[in-house]
Amino acid sequence: MAESMLDYGRRILSEQPFSASMGTQLDAWSEDLAELSLEVRPDHLQQHGFVHGGVIAYLADNALAFAGGSRLGDAVTMEFKINYIKPARGNLLVARARVISAGKSQAVCLCEVFVEDETEVTLCAAAQGTIWKIG
Amino acid sequence: MAESMLDYGRRILSEQPFSASMGTQLDAWSEDLAELSLEVRPDHLQQHGFVHGGVIAYLADNALAFAGGSRLGDAVTMEFKINYIKPARGNLLVARARVISAGKSQAVCLCEVFVEDETEVTLCAAAQGTIWKIG
Amino acid sequence: MAESMLDYGRRILSEQPFSASMGTQLDAWSEDLAELSLEVRPDHLQQHGFVHGGVIAYLADNALAFAGGSRLGDAVTMEFKINYIKPARGNLLVARARVISAGKSQAVCLCEVFVEDETEVTLCAAAQGTIWKIG
Amino acid sequence: MAESMLDYGRRILSEQPFSASMGTQLDAWSEDLAELSLEVRPDHLQQHGFVHGGVIAYLADNALAFAGGSRLGDAVTMEFKINYIKPARGNLLVARARVISAGKSQAVCLCEVFVEDETEVTLCAAAQGTIWKIG
Repeated sequence: MAESMLDYGRRILSEQPFSASMGTQLDAWSEDLAELSLEVRPDHLQQHGFVHGGVIAYLADNALAFAGGSRLGDAVTMEFKINYIKPARGNLLVARARVISAGKSQAVCLCEVFVEDETEVTLCAAAQGTIWKIG
Repeated sequence: MAESMLDYGRRILSEQPFSASMGTQLDAWSEDLAELSLEVRPDHLQQHGFVHGGVIAYLADNALAFAGGSRLGDAVTMEFKINYIKPARGNLLVARARVISAGKSQAVCLCEVFVEDETEVTLCAAAQGTIWKIG
Repeated sequence: MAESMLDYGRRILSEQPFSASMGTQLDAWSEDLAELSLEVRPDHLQQHGFVHGGVIAYLADNALAFAGGSRLGDAVTMEFKINYIKPARGNLLVARARVISAGKSQAVCLCEVFVEDETEVTLCAAAQGTIWKIG
Repeated sequence: MAESMLDYGRRILSEQPFSASMGTQLDAWSEDLAELSLEVRPDHLQQHGFVHGGVIAYLADNALAFAGGSRLGDAVTMEFKINYIKPARGNLLVARARVISAGKSQAVCLCEVFVEDETEVTLCAAAQGTIWKIG
């Protein structure tokens, strides 16, 4: 049986040792869209008890690359920009990215990062970047 | 004896569980300048054997915040932009950030990230961002 | 009779000599949203016959500031990032911006810039930035 | 006699109708570096009497493209990010850009924009972007 797009994406993600070490999951992956999430662990935090900005930037970067890769195939983030919006306190970090334009060699993508706890979902960051086809 | 600025910075860094888990070191910290580094480990890589972009973005973000914090005191990254320049393969990742402008509540900072192996130093990313005073 | 929000916005825009010289119109302005447009003139072009990137960046910057200003009052663009997506050839340039998060002193906004001719509407740029309350 | 690089650059600039209308000058252009300037006119201002951010973004964008073009040949700005640092009041706006990395098809460049009056030079913005070879 053919591997589904989602299974293929999960296999790629599992081949990223850093993503495996972070506990990142690929929740959804289809044309133009990607959703990644990770359960927040104590070692993801900074000195004030919030999720470290670097964890948020990592998840946004990776979600942007998966979104762009849904159109380009094997691809990497070429550049991105992120605005941190609210301090991230919660159990689950979710990054949803989408393609707003794709050509043959590059795609421009947006990403929103949310943090969830038992009762609330909070937008904690927004990113925009360029994904670049390789190979 | 008074705690030096560098010792104070190292204490802050050690209070970031994510930075401790990444193995990040504060090599230098003085007015307008910060240098952070980390020894590249297998769990820092992505699927092609290079340092994961998220690791590079994390180190740049943190170096920008330390640089800005040298002028602002307790501070966080409000937003930043990063360009990945070369695939990062090597043993050591080094981020050098500097303030280009600081006011009372915010600073604009630049950062270059280098990867080093036994024989070469390669510029692998450049970032620019805004650091925001808190408290 | 009280001045409407749109009339107030048009008055502010008319007080920007650069916007007056560019021929910029405020088409819509309401909470979280702003639309600016300008008729493309020969003096807006670059050497290949497309609308100059600087014109597109100007319109995006201004639309971001109006969107943010709908929540913050008197406000300026603190920083933004723009991706050029397609060469802009057409008669009308339209920038639509919206707030994705607003606090007391700053707002994060997104903007899409479209170029229109007789038959087509093309997304030519996307921007993300921080708007800052002044005064 | 062969056209110098600076003369060639000035010819390109003169072929940009928008740059001609803005009064932009190419002061210097050599490998990795470009300096553009414009005399501030009343129609370059915004409602508070400062140079409009769109004028600053335009000049930065163009300087980034000239810097990148010094390595790539015919090239356009693919994306950039700008931080406004100080309100720009003065007679002359100067943008100095430099290449920090150039490959075959793209270059990453930085730019600082200064405003000058009779007695002072003030850094009013900093930009970072990607320049893309065309043709």
